[in-house]
Amino acid sequence: MELFAVPDLPEVRPGDDLAELVEERVDLRPDDVVCVASTVVSKAEGRHADLDDFPAGPRAREIAATLEELAGEEKDPRFAQAVLEESTDLVMEAPFLLTETRFGHVGVNAGIDRSNVADADLLLLPKRPSESAERIRAGLSADRVVVTDTCGRPFRHGQRGVAIGWAGMPASRDWRGEHDRDGREMGVTVQSVVDELAAAANLVAGEGAGGTPVVVARGFEFGDLGGSDNLYRDLDGDFVRQALRGWSFDG
Amino acid sequence: MELFAVPDLPEVRPGDDLAELVEERVDLRPDDVVCVASTVVSKAEGRHADLDDFPAGPRAREIAATLEELAGEEKDPRFAQAVLEESTDLVMEAPFLLTETRFGHVGVNAGIDRSNVADADLLLLPKRPSESAERIRAGLSADRVVVTDTCGRPFRHGQRGVAIGWAGMPASRDWRGEHDRDGREMGVTVQSVVDELAAAANLVAGEGAGGTPVVVARGFEFGDLGGSDNLYRDLDGDFVRQALRGWSFDG
Ligand SMILES: Nc1nc2c(ncn2[C@@H]2O[C@H](COP(=O)(O)OP(=O)(O)O)[C@@H](O)[C@H]2O)c(=O)[nH]1
Ligand SMILES: Nc1nc2c(ncn2[C@@H]2O[C@H](COP(=O)(O)OP(=O)(O)O)[C@@H](O)[C@H]2O)c(=O)[nH]1
Ligand SMILES: [Mn+2]
Ligand SMILES: [Mn+2]
Ligand SMILES: [Mn+2]
Ligand SMILES: [Mn+2]
Repeated sequence: MELFAVPDLPEVRPGDDLAELVEERVDLRPDDVVCVASTVVSKAEGRHADLDDFPAGPRAREIAATLEELAGEEKDPRFAQAVLEESTDLVMEAPFLLTETRFGHVGVNAGIDRSNVADADLLLLPKRPSESAERIRAGLSADRVVVTDTCGRPFRHGQRGVAIGWAGMPASRDWRGEHDRDGREMGVTVQSVVDELAAAANLVAGEGAGGTPVVVARGFEFGDLGGSDNLYRDLDGDFVRQALRGWSFDG
Repeated sequence: MELFAVPDLPEVRPGDDLAELVEERVDLRPDDVVCVASTVVSKAEGRHADLDDFPAGPRAREIAATLEELAGEEKDPRFAQAVLEESTDLVMEAPFLLTETRFGHVGVNAGIDRSNVADADLLLLPKRPSESAERIRAGLSADRVVVTDTCGRPFRHGQRGVAIGWAGMPASRDWRGEHDRDGREMGVTVQSVVDELAAAANLVAGEGAGGTPVVVARGFEFGDLGGSDNLYRDLDGDFVRQALRGWSFDG
């Protein structure tokens, strides 16, 4: 398997056709997986926003006041408002905002970026990243697309690339029912290949000014196992979310 | 960047020299990252165990009884005992055992495998995987080694490869203080490159009978950013662990 960045991509602007920008720069093969940073998907979709677009309601003001006190630095209640409007569930309020976005992804600040954004205060995540992936895919000579973001996680420091949208392949590869080297049937292993592809792509894309938001993964063989698009846990099956529900930060 | 599996590796046995097995099969370059599944590190280190090695104490019997009731199927208290003995902290007791291993990694059942294990009931994780990585590295003509495992996570279904040990490189690449495309200084981004390498390697290694526990990542450039080996959160900095502390499963 090989991973390479699409070279010389310009600053992406609202209305840009990402598929076309990629096709002009690389010769794709049908079985390539094109991994696209959500940042440029959002830019192409015009998901820029300004803080003034989010006049803060009482809940946002309350949250910002708490965060301000904890951080000892000013927190803009309009930012909290933006996060609330981008979210369908509040997973954690302090010491940072962790929410579920409308498409099921749990992330800090609903994935709203203030980095690598030109001419606007904020960049919101794509509204429905798997639909974005499908749209991009339709314009590509490659059959598979993954939309990525960079996220932190419990238990481990640091961030890594994850998938927030995908098209042309299932999110996971299901090993259940397969047999291991010793003939034992595997009972639980469902490999989240879109997340692994996103992580791999992130190694090449980087997080800074590199200008390489699109990475092609060539030679990834999904194989003939089954798969599923069920990537995001709901509250019922997520004990961490249940635990966070009954918890509050006490300093 | 390129990823390829080391071909034709045999079943690994206690005492085997993994570095030698790899060197015999591929021409490594100094800047390759050799990603080794913990399974074979454990096998080489003789971390096989039998359930009889773990006579269950009262705590393990209590845990197994709870899990048995919840699962509606028999649970061996000796397995719970093995998990307890491999752990320094119990993060979650039900509906499954999530613990911190002695080297800081949080995983289900302390990472003890019952899959891909020949001639023993259990395979325990390496005692100190970063020391294992360093030992393997010493015998290789490549300068960097990552020891991987397959793990689940909160918020998302499925499992993906993570690093549990590494040598010759820091665990993370620190982008803080760097400037993004718009000249904005990045405040939080610490990229967990060893986890991303482990995830990438896992795409090639697979989870089944493939027989490809070692994957070479060629052409990964760490660059000249700083880094850190601080991969595992401690309780203080991990709100999810704090929340799980005060939580118990109620069916
Ligand atoms: N060429 C180009 N690169 C961009 C643009 N926006 C971001 N990038 C690059 O895309 C990569 C990922 O950026 P990042 O902010 O981490 O995106 P995220 O992980 O999706 O939030 C980095 O290499 C950035 O320099 C853009 O508009 N054009
Ligand atoms: N050649 C060889 N392959 C093995 C051996 N043990 C496991 N594998 C392979 O290593 C890969 C990873 O195995 P897995 O059980 O998922 O390891 P883990 O992720 O470290 O728990 C799969 O391709 C297995 O078939 C072994 O002793 N020899
Ligand atoms: Mn982002
Ligand atoms: Mn990023
Ligand atoms: Mn394992
Ligand atoms: Mn595995």
